[in-house]
Amino acid sequence: MIQKNLTDQITKLLEQSKKIELRHLLKDMHDADFAAAIDDFSAAIVLQLLLLLSLPAQCHLFVYLDPKKQSDVASLMSRNDLAALFSNMEQAARADLYNQLDDQQKQTLMPGLAQAERDDIRKLASYPEKTVGALMTSGYATLRSNWTVSKSLIKLRLEAPDKETIYQIYVIDEQRKLLGTLSLRELILASPSSLVEEIMLSEVVSVQVSDDQEIIPQIISHYDLIAVPVLDHEAKIVGIVTYDDAMDAAEEEATEDAQKSASVAALDSPMSKVSPAELYRKRIGWLVLLIFGALLSGAGLAFFEETIAANIALVFFMPLLVGAGGNAGSQAAALMVRSLATGDVEYKDWTKLLRKDAIVALALGLTMGVTVYFLGLVRGGPEIALIVAFAMFFVVFVGSIIGLCLPFILSKLNLDPATASGPLVTTIVDASGVLIYFGFATLLL
Amino acid sequence: MIQKNLTDQITKLLEQSKKIELRHLLKDMHDADFAAAIDDFSAAIVLQLLLLLSLPAQCHLFVYLDPKKQSDVASLMSRNDLAALFSNMEQAARADLYNQLDDQQKQTLMPGLAQAERDDIRKLASYPEKTVGALMTSGYATLRSNWTVSKSLIKLRLEAPDKETIYQIYVIDEQRKLLGTLSLRELILASPSSLVEEIMLSEVVSVQVSDDQEIIPQIISHYDLIAVPVLDHEAKIVGIVTYDDAMDAAEEEATEDAQKSASVAALDSPMSKVSPAELYRKRIGWLVLLIFGALLSGAGLAFFEETIAANIALVFFMPLLVGAGGNAGSQAAALMVRSLATGDVEYKDWTKLLRKDAIVALALGLTMGVTVYFLGLVRGGPEIALIVAFAMFFVVFVGSIIGLCLPFILSKLNLDPATASGPLVTTIVDASGVLIYFGFATLLL
Repeated sequence: MIQKNLTDQITKLLEQSKKIELRHLLKDMHDADFAAAIDDFSAAIVLQLLLLLSLPAQCHLFVYLDPKKQSDVASLMSRNDLAALFSNMEQAARADLYNQLDDQQKQTLMPGLAQAERDDIRKLASYPEKTVGALMTSGYATLRSNWTVSKSLIKLRLEAPDKETIYQIYVIDEQRKLLGTLSLRELILASPSSLVEEIMLSEVVSVQVSDDQEIIPQIISHYDLIAVPVLDHEAKIVGIVTYDDAMDAAEEEATEDAQKSASVAALDSPMSKVSPAELYRKRIGWLVLLIFGALLSGAGLAFFEETIAANIALVFFMPLLVGAGGNAGSQAAALMVRSLATGDVEYKDWTKLLRKDAIVALALGLTMGVTVYFLGLVRGGPEIALIVAFAMFFVVFVGSIIGLCLPFILSKLNLDPATASGPLVTTIVDASGVLIYFGFATLLL
Repeated sequence: MIQKNLTDQITKLLEQSKKIELRHLLKDMHDADFAAAIDDFSAAIVLQLLLLLSLPAQCHLFVYLDPKKQSDVASLMSRNDLAALFSNMEQAARADLYNQLDDQQKQTLMPGLAQAERDDIRKLASYPEKTVGALMTSGYATLRSNWTVSKSLIKLRLEAPDKETIYQIYVIDEQRKLLGTLSLRELILASPSSLVEEIMLSEVVSVQVSDDQEIIPQIISHYDLIAVPVLDHEAKIVGIVTYDDAMDAAEEEATEDAQKSASVAALDSPMSKVSPAELYRKRIGWLVLLIFGALLSGAGLAFFEETIAANIALVFFMPLLVGAGGNAGSQAAALMVRSLATGDVEYKDWTKLLRKDAIVALALGLTMGVTVYFLGLVRGGPEIALIVAFAMFFVVFVGSIIGLCLPFILSKLNLDPATASGPLVTTIVDASGVLIYFGFATLLL
């Protein structure tokens, strides 16, 4: 969505310091597109551009820059400019930026802010990454249960500019305990003299501040919410997570799972932004680790050296057999990992799934066994055909069951089930395949 | 999120036909939870339950049932009940249900509906699956540019109950051409006497009705929209897609990609609902197809029979080498497929990515080569160590490059790049690995 000529246009206006034209250009388009167009600019140039804009425009544009660029630009800003930017930024984005500053920058910044802002930033910035607390914003709108609809609308109109959303509104008591919720749609449809408590919904779906962020997209999408309220351990509301942050979290989680499912450690940024050195670091770990898994297969082969030496033709079928087992295992693991991630399947369903998958694995094993029997007949004679067919049946069956069980075992060990990746499953199944195949061969030949 | 005791409670109330209590229970909780609790009920029981509820409650609950259950229940309904349900359902859900009915049901149903409803259903139901048209709803709110804010608010209040969302509103002319957009927040903040055209945003992000549904989550999340307007080829607005449908589409696409990345054909329903027979069908295709890929590796081994017979120890290192190549290839393919899916990387970036990944692949190959050199030294002597190390370097490098290129090649052939799955990459890299390894060995020994 980046337009090359837009980038050129901005560069030109900037070189000529055409402030008014730049402001017009920014006003006529979406901030996200403008931010994408200046993505390749250095931090110094971005800063120069920002300072030509009004403060609200600065804030709008700033939140669309990528996090790395944000902190680079912030580190070049004067203390006053940075404090002004901070005071006007949306709360969640501000806390994220704060977390990326170094200690010195943090200390320089804080005195320039109002007490309430300092408290808000410290609070939001204190939640660990990947928790609901780190994702939430404090810019939510609240009402009291004994207010009338007309009073509520007046109050909302006053507060709207500072709130992340006013489409879902939360009814609280003096202790900020959550009593109910109300949508703006319900509010404008209600009679002006009604009381909030008469029209609010008192069964509110909420999450805990310490929950894992991955539950947010599931809840928002399950209940079709605009935002979900976040409670602390005393059931007091401390923030909300809106659907757009939930979508970002869902995409982030799916990307992480896709990377883990191929034995890549989760990248910190989108792949296009990552340096070759980081890509290397994120990939080499598992590659080296899996060498040791593969050594098992090698040791298995060494154990059967005599059988192999006597029947070299057995080796020709090895890639076929262990490959098929690994493929069946990868299929089962990927299906299971994704179903666990979307909440379609839960850990307690394990035995039911095992029974269902055992039937599928049996059928797959049989089909594959029969198929390679004929291949074996053509290329190695009836004896080899029988061995290959039997081995194929067992390897596919066992591979499939290993693929199914691995995510559950990993989660029992408190590891991320997404680590039950194709390469890990393949390596484990390879070793089992070698044992099954040559074990059979040694028995039968 | 299903509560066992809730299911029991509903069953009990239903057996005693306690209509009032059931209505209260449903009112006190979210429809999504209620629907989840009756998920295992037969269609006949669900119908019996629905008919105890008021029509609006029926509709709310019905849309949360899974699509299969919806059509089963619909097929048991009398023509009048079904027509009443259809008339009151949200437009997009109604069109989806219509598409699931058989021809006879469709013909029975249509005469019971008003002309406008018939037209709306036919129009929405006519768009191919996975397009924006199939995802959109016609329940959007519109305004005219010369209306005042106060007139607009009155109109919105009247229309609100029939609209999917009133938080994003579209300004159209007499031909339904899209002139601008406005959020409800902006509308209630504006002065009552302002004209819509003075406050609307005229640069509107929109999609085409025939676009692939996968662009929707990208656009909604990139621009932080509540809904995106859908235009036909004459730039007239024909519908909107809201953020909640975008989230569902994003999850569906990510699930499909996760399945394809493990060589499973995309499932039609969540895994927990799919029968063993369907799971078998979705998995066996690729497993059998990949057999023929693996035959290449077998043929490669047969070609090097003499080398192998003379040095059986070479075989022991084979799983290590081809495994590592396959793993590196799977990593590269998964990174690329996911980056293409999220829009982080585009097809035109191919050469830039190739250059970056070549550096990474070289570094990975070197590290892996050095590591196995020492393993080779210990377990096979200096000559084998050298062969294994060289082969490892090349296999990992080539595997990585194959994994990177495959998604691009597939998309050039108009195939889904997600098909560049771990198992497919592994099978291709296996064959190359055998050739590289034993080719080297034959040359050097």
